[in-house]
Parts: sequence; structure tokens; C-alpha cells
Amino acid sequence: MNVADLADAVRQRRLPALARAITVVENQAPGFEEILSRLHGDVGRAYRIGVTGPPGAGKSTLVDALAGHFRARGLTVAVVAVDPTSPMSGGALLGDRVRMESVASDPGVFIRSMATRGAVGGLAMTTLEVCDLLDAFGFDRIVVETVGVGQSEMAVAATTDTALLVLVPESGDAVQVLKAGVMEVAHIYVVNKNDRPGASQVTAEVGELISIRREIGSDGSEWMPRVLETCATSGDGTGALCDAIEERGEWLTPPRRAQVVRARLIAHTRAVIDRSRQLEVWSNGAVRDALDRRINEVLQGELSTYDLARQLLDTRPLP
Amino acid sequence: MNVADLADAVRQRRLPALARAITVVENQAPGFEEILSRLHGDVGRAYRIGVTGPPGAGKSTLVDALAGHFRARGLTVAVVAVDPTSPMSGGALLGDRVRMESVASDPGVFIRSMATRGAVGGLAMTTLEVCDLLDAFGFDRIVVETVGVGQSEMAVAATTDTALLVLVPESGDAVQVLKAGVMEVAHIYVVNKNDRPGASQVTAEVGELISIRREIGSDGSEWMPRVLETCATSGDGTGALCDAIEERGEWLTPPRRAQVVRARLIAHTRAVIDRSRQLEVWSNGAVRDALDRRINEVLQGELSTYDLARQLLDTRPLP
Repeated sequence: MNVADLADAVRQRRLPALARAITVVENQAPGFEEILSRLHGDVGRAYRIGVTGPPGAGKSTLVDALAGHFRARGLTVAVVAVDPTSPMSGGALLGDRVRMESVASDPGVFIRSMATRGAVGGLAMTTLEVCDLLDAFGFDRIVVETVGVGQSEMAVAATTDTALLVLVPESGDAVQVLKAGVMEVAHIYVVNKNDRPGASQVTAEVGELISIRREIGSDGSEWMPRVLETCATSGDGTGALCDAIEERGEWLTPPRRAQVVRARLIAHTRAVIDRSRQLEVWSNGAVRDALDRRINEVLQGELSTYDLARQLLDTRPLP
Repeated sequence: MNVADLADAVRQRRLPALARAITVVENQAPGFEEILSRLHGDVGRAYRIGVTGPPGAGKSTLVDALAGHFRARGLTVAVVAVDPTSPMSGGALLGDRVRMESVASDPGVFIRSMATRGAVGGLAMTTLEVCDLLDAFGFDRIVVETVGVGQSEMAVAATTDTALLVLVPESGDAVQVLKAGVMEVAHIYVVNKNDRPGASQVTAEVGELISIRREIGSDGSEWMPRVLETCATSGDGTGALCDAIEERGEWLTPPRRAQVVRARLIAHTRAVIDRSRQLEVWSNGAVRDALDRRINEVLQGELSTYDLARQLLDTRPLP
């Protein structure tokens, strides 16, 4: 199937075409930008939710519960589980499909794990592009789940419309990170496992931290971040969380949403340009080989990394 | 002062020149790569130590204590405090110089905060380049301090020879992150504030996690990661930590170190190439203006981000 047909098949909501298109985009296989470009007019209807937090915070169970609530409201859901692999283990963390058991057999729910460490352009960009495919396909809600408490992790969540940060009573580090303002901010904070000791204390601490933050829409209206308690395993509080997510979705009406989307499109266009120029260099085997061969000259102090970089750029036979 | 003179003055260990060169590199001001390139032959003698961990873990106090131990052993020390600023607050986190009070008046200690969010090429790269300046200047030990528990934070530490991860008894999230293998690994783990309850439990947990990890040198010898307890405020355990750092420094003898440095130089050359091509595009005001002007066509669905990227690349009047 050529690129045009594949894009058409995604538009016609054929699941095997969607799966194939995602693989093409994930692998940055030939034509991946062309597929995305062709689907551009179909992108923009889905509401995207980012869920991040430390491993063990119960994010998968929470996402499972949210997917159930969305389905009960007649909405289709796609879940993208971003799977950071350790350079040490090389293994897939979320690869197992034991998770999401309560919704996995529902055709209105699509689940995909992504392990794109090393993709040119970075994880946040590839995740955004996979979400564009899911959006063009027609899912009503797209949930992106990332693992970790740091800047890279929040950067992925920040490509969505609404970012959730999931904490647990043991999240001393994450609360410190919030206090220090190191991380980009979330729109909704969740204290999960609220049946454990210390939950209400974390909720109070986070509540105080976020009380001074607010987001101003283009029309002057405000979104106040909020903190909610849940117990994903029992379902306690997950309905209210779904309500809060939907409430923010309604707040993001066209004029306010355009503001968010415009910034995202500018960042994406910049990233597309940078990535295409990177691919131009590094898809050239001669450049990679020359780098590997000539690095010893740098190691021996004969020339600097900057000299070598300039020479590689000057000699490469690029179009 | 021109670029050649500035590089010479750094080589001649003039402190004002060092401070100025760091500013030029941080700001990617004209000639920044040329300064670094000229100093390439003088880089490689310093031993670089990365210190990362959640805010509030006592890293600054610990680095202060380490600097004291290095000085007592007759070694000069440079400290680079990498300062992530929140996009929300825009404020500097480590900007205050209240820290490091016990060593700040010692001319054998140089302390510099860096806030380079947004630098083309990323924080890890700019930090590495600032360390190269400090190395060329002649500091014996360079300590790079970053804040956070995530992939970006460890990426900065990974540009050093020896990476420390500082935890506290409350570091439930960080221990989960370690368990999940989400983060790049450290060479030495520190459980600070060991006078608080739960310290020995965290030490035991980390000890078990790292017991299966080892690093194999080019000659087949092994470095076993280790976990140590400290109390930075009282100084308890900091001498032993300094010993462990020095022990790894001795393990990194020339053949083994060449392996580490070679990988770092390859990564750096790649990054220099990518960055110079990015700067080529984005230093062009016409491209930036056209992007800002034409993004509305994308927003209105008239063309895709990929179409716009291609058109900007085709029309830009680049050399």
C-alpha cells in the first residue's frame, strides 16, 4: 500500500492501516512525514490527556478506570503508553498487556505501547505524531501515559491539551520537585492510593503549592489547577477525576484552544525542520563512517570535535 | 579581546577570562565554538563528577563537603550548579550564593551557576562545554550538580566521568524509578540525611537493586556501583564518599578512560553538527518571521506543518 492509500485507509477508520501507519511513524520509515502531512486536515478533533508520574503510582490502573468512564459516556479512547527503556536493561517496561484488562476487549478502546528511544527528534515529537494519527482516525479521547518525574517526562505530557500528574503518599521527591518549580506544571494533580497513610497530607501540600497558579485563556478566563484524590483499584474518585478532565476540555473551547494549538504547531514545525536536517546528515552512511573512523584524531588531540564537525559537514556529498 | 586571546588567557589561568569565556559559551555568542576548539588540546586532565538527585536532598551541602575534602587533599575544584528554571516562575533556583559558604572564599574553588534553558543543543551539551573550559583552565576536579529525578537530569550527569545519585529516606519515587530502570544508571549512590528514619531501609533497597549491575572496562576489569550513607550537615560519611569517588577515578586509568572519552567525543561531534545546522536555520530572522506569520495557514488547515517546514527550508536564503 502506498503512502496516499495508507493515509486514506486511516481516514476510513481501518484498524490495520492505523497500526501500520503508527509503525511507519515510530520507525521514521520512508514516507512517514507524507502520511502525517496528508492527514493534517483530519487532525484536531480529539481531546488529548497526558498522564505522568513515578513508576508504581498506579497510572495504568487509573488510565484503565478513566477509559471505562469515557466509554460509559459513549466516547472512544486511544491509549498511548510511552515506554522508556533503560539503556542498561534495553527492556520494555510497559510491553506486557496484562494492564488495561477491563477495557482491552472493547473495540472502542485502542491501546498502543511505544518504545522510541533514539528516534531522531525525540520522544515527545514522535508521541505527538502518533497522537495525530489517532486523532485523524477519529478517537474522541487520547490518553498519553509516561513514566517518571522529570523534565523529559513532563515534556511529553505537555504536548497534550490537559496534563495530569499522578502522585502517591510516598511521593516525597515529586513534591520536592514541585516545590522547586523544576518541572513544567500540570493542569490536574492526582493523589492516588488515597487509602494509604499520608495521602491527605500530600493532597494538602500540593493544594497549597498550586493555589497560586492559574492559566489565563485568550479571553481572560482562568483555569485553576486542582488536586484530586483517587484509589484507582477500587475506582474511588475516578469518576470525579473524569469530570474534572472533561470540565477542562469544555473550558478549552475554540478561541482558548486555538492559543494552545498554535503554540504546539509552531513548536512542531520548528522540530520538523530540525529533524529533517538531522536525518539529512545522519542517514548518510559515509558521514557516520567518517565520524567513527576519524574520532581517534580527536582523541589524540590532533583536531577538535568542532574541527571534525566542520570537516564532516564540508565533505559530505549531500544534495 | 578576540577569540584567540580569550582562549590564551583561559589557558594562562586568568579568572576573568574564564568567567567571560563561560558567558560566551552559555550564550552561544559569536565565536563560542572557536574558543572551545582552540582549547581542545588542553582538555582532558580534569576528573569530572556529576551529582544529581531530587531537590531538598542536600546536594549543595554535600558538594560543599566534597569540595572541602578535595581541597584538603591539595586539589582545586570547580562546581557547576545547573539551574533548571521553571517555565512558570522563570526564576533561578540555585542563583543564591548562600550555598557553599564554607569554601566560597577559597581561591582554589570556583563556583558557577548555569541557567541555559533554551540553549540550542540542550543543557547537557552546554554543561559539557562549560566543563571543557574549566578543564582547560586546569581545575583538578569538576563537580556538576543537577536537580531532579528523571532522564534529562541524568543525561547531564552522564556527560561526566562518575555520576552520583543522591537520595534521602523520603525518596520513594526515586527508588521506584531505579526499580523500573527508567533512568540511566549512576556509579555511586548516596543516601544522605542518614540520621532520619528509614535511611538504612533505602540503603538496603538500593544496594539490592544495584547488586546485579557492573561496568566492564576495556581490559575486562569491573567497576561495581556502590551505595554509601552520608549526613552532609555533620560531615558524617563524606570522607568515605570522597574516597569512593577517587577510587573510581583511579579505576578510570588511561585505557579504560579512553573508552569513556571516545564515546563522549562521538556524541559531542554529532551534537555539534546538529546544533550548527539548527543555528544556521534559526539565526535567520526571515525564517523565524515567516514561521510566525504563516502558522495561521496551518491552524486553518490550508497546509500541514510538514508542508510549511518544507517551504521554509526551500525559500530561506541560506549560504
